[in-house]
Amino acid sequence: MEERVYNFSAGPSVLPVEVMRDAAAQMLNYEGSGMSVMEMSHRSAPFEKIINDAEANLRTLLNVPDDYDVLFVQGGTTLLFAMIPLNLMTGSGKADYIITGQWAEKAYQEAAKFGDAKAVASSKPEKFSYIPKVPAGDFRKDADYAHITWNNTIYGSKYAAAPDTGGLTLVTDMSSSILSEQIDVTKFGCIYAGAQKNIGPAGLSIIIIKKELVGLAKESVPTYMDFKIHADNGSMYNTPPAWCIYIAGEVFKLLLKNGGVAAMEEINKRKAAKLYDYIDGSGLYTAPVAKDDRSLMNVVFVTGDEGLDKKFASEANAEGLVQLNGHRSIGGMRASIYNAMPEEGVDKLIAFMKKFEEENA
Amino acid sequence: MEERVYNFSAGPSVLPVEVMRDAAAQMLNYEGSGMSVMEMSHRSAPFEKIINDAEANLRTLLNVPDDYDVLFVQGGTTLLFAMIPLNLMTGSGKADYIITGQWAEKAYQEAAKFGDAKAVASSKPEKFSYIPKVPAGDFRKDADYAHITWNNTIYGSKYAAAPDTGGLTLVTDMSSSILSEQIDVTKFGCIYAGAQKNIGPAGLSIIIIKKELVGLAKESVPTYMDFKIHADNGSMYNTPPAWCIYIAGEVFKLLLKNGGVAAMEEINKRKAAKLYDYIDGSGLYTAPVAKDDRSLMNVVFVTGDEGLDKKFASEANAEGLVQLNGHRSIGGMRASIYNAMPEEGVDKLIAFMKKFEEENA
Repeated sequence: MEERVYNFSAGPSVLPVEVMRDAAAQMLNYEGSGMSVMEMSHRSAPFEKIINDAEANLRTLLNVPDDYDVLFVQGGTTLLFAMIPLNLMTGSGKADYIITGQWAEKAYQEAAKFGDAKAVASSKPEKFSYIPKVPAGDFRKDADYAHITWNNTIYGSKYAAAPDTGGLTLVTDMSSSILSEQIDVTKFGCIYAGAQKNIGPAGLSIIIIKKELVGLAKESVPTYMDFKIHADNGSMYNTPPAWCIYIAGEVFKLLLKNGGVAAMEEINKRKAAKLYDYIDGSGLYTAPVAKDDRSLMNVVFVTGDEGLDKKFASEANAEGLVQLNGHRSIGGMRASIYNAMPEEGVDKLIAFMKKFEEENA
Repeated sequence: MEERVYNFSAGPSVLPVEVMRDAAAQMLNYEGSGMSVMEMSHRSAPFEKIINDAEANLRTLLNVPDDYDVLFVQGGTTLLFAMIPLNLMTGSGKADYIITGQWAEKAYQEAAKFGDAKAVASSKPEKFSYIPKVPAGDFRKDADYAHITWNNTIYGSKYAAAPDTGGLTLVTDMSSSILSEQIDVTKFGCIYAGAQKNIGPAGLSIIIIKKELVGLAKESVPTYMDFKIHADNGSMYNTPPAWCIYIAGEVFKLLLKNGGVAAMEEINKRKAAKLYDYIDGSGLYTAPVAKDDRSLMNVVFVTGDEGLDKKFASEANAEGLVQLNGHRSIGGMRASIYNAMPEEGVDKLIAFMKKFEEENA
């Protein structure tokens, strides 16, 4: 049953074995309730505890201040790309986006449906190989917010620090880096993330939002898309994605037990450094992203030969190192090394890369 | 591990033990993939098979014709209450709703945000104790669609047959009755349902929609809310709620194995008849819903004494018959006896009801 592979998928992606083993053991009877979490009324005491604990533990992990709401919603970032402008682009109707990858671009394009969204900078002409450094003066002073994508899953880049927006509310998509490194929540008006990378199963998104930014949506907005409806009802206006919240909550508990985000950050930096160091020193592989902007979670690399890239992914797969192909839109290779990827997986990947390099030099 | 209760929750609700036992067994390694379904890229071959099989089996179960799309989405019926008018109330901008309960009313109120929604009939003045019989002439000839709620989870009523809308497209919320009885899909333009009652875990909704009704949304609609984006991408425009789809798919397989919807309908009718017959013959309990309009899935009953109702739910709970309290908005009792509730559970409930009646006569 436990012949597991090393799963480098960019998302949905590897989850902690401890969490899944426990979920399997309690599948038919969660903590003596006589039923599965999947079967449980969301208004029941055990589920109320699950969702309340999940929120409390996430707050602890990220040191979320009391003047922020934490919301659990459905629809993925695709729905959130619309929810953000519909809730926040309601003052001047302007919002400034920095385009650092495909998801950043989609967020921008969606916002443009609802108002005056502006792309203030883009690294697209250089194939998203770096994070543009945008001076505060480049943002429109009267914009309702500035939007960035903290970590770019497809291209393997990441912000090293939050940009100075000259006072604009900063909104960020942190889907593929949340809980991987310490962040100062107070620098952001809104942090949002799909769960299916570093948190739990697909079907859950998390919003961390300053309370003063909740309640700004127009009345014409679909009820489900109004942040206020979720904030006022503890994310239970309607039936929440209960199983996803349960697994996410178990991941949060495990992270706390293991030393929290600071401890994860240390391990993640070590894992990523090992891999980048090897790539930078190798004769076969190159990492296309600017060194200062490299992701800790998604390590993108290429051989420069498409056929060899495909051979790499295929041979790695045969050795139980799976999902190493790059995103279908850019090819190459990508090793997603989220929190739940054990360091041993990175070591095995490097060993395979060495062997492959020797065989294909 | 398997000291299970009989769970009469209205949703999320009881699921088949076989499905959960198998999901637990394959939690860490689904069919030799070396990973959990929760960890699996939605673009991977095993997940493609899961979602394709789920759709194909649902089509078989409900005899869905080829000129209908089957979509898997997130957001629950709350999001769907907006998606329906945003996609379908785009011709004349008018839609006619029949109000048979709280959810029907919410669907109507949401549609009224986006156009000329009209409540053509309502049983609210009689506490939703029956399904209004609406003559075809009462619908507006130029309405884009007529909307009904097939089964009313809170009040325990259900349509016995689809109303004659005089040619209007009929749209129905079937959240709490889908797969419980045979339906003629061709009578409907669109059938939608939250999964968390008769299908699988919360976090998934299903839309069965005539292809000619897909693609009618305006461009200004949020991308996620456009039926066409899901139809064009096989419900994988963005990451789908993979675990929920997996469990739903396993439920579909089991239903097929057990004789399909026809077999379920026979069992469901027997289960419901037992319970209603006992209630109608008892000296303590009454079922408030008109006999012809009674739900097969949600059996609502009262003693007429609030204190006694509470005592009933509490004592039943102590005997492992749980979640028998009525919806928080109306009180009384409600036994939700979905497909996955074994007949034995209904028998035990009736035995308990008899005992309680004797003790409290």
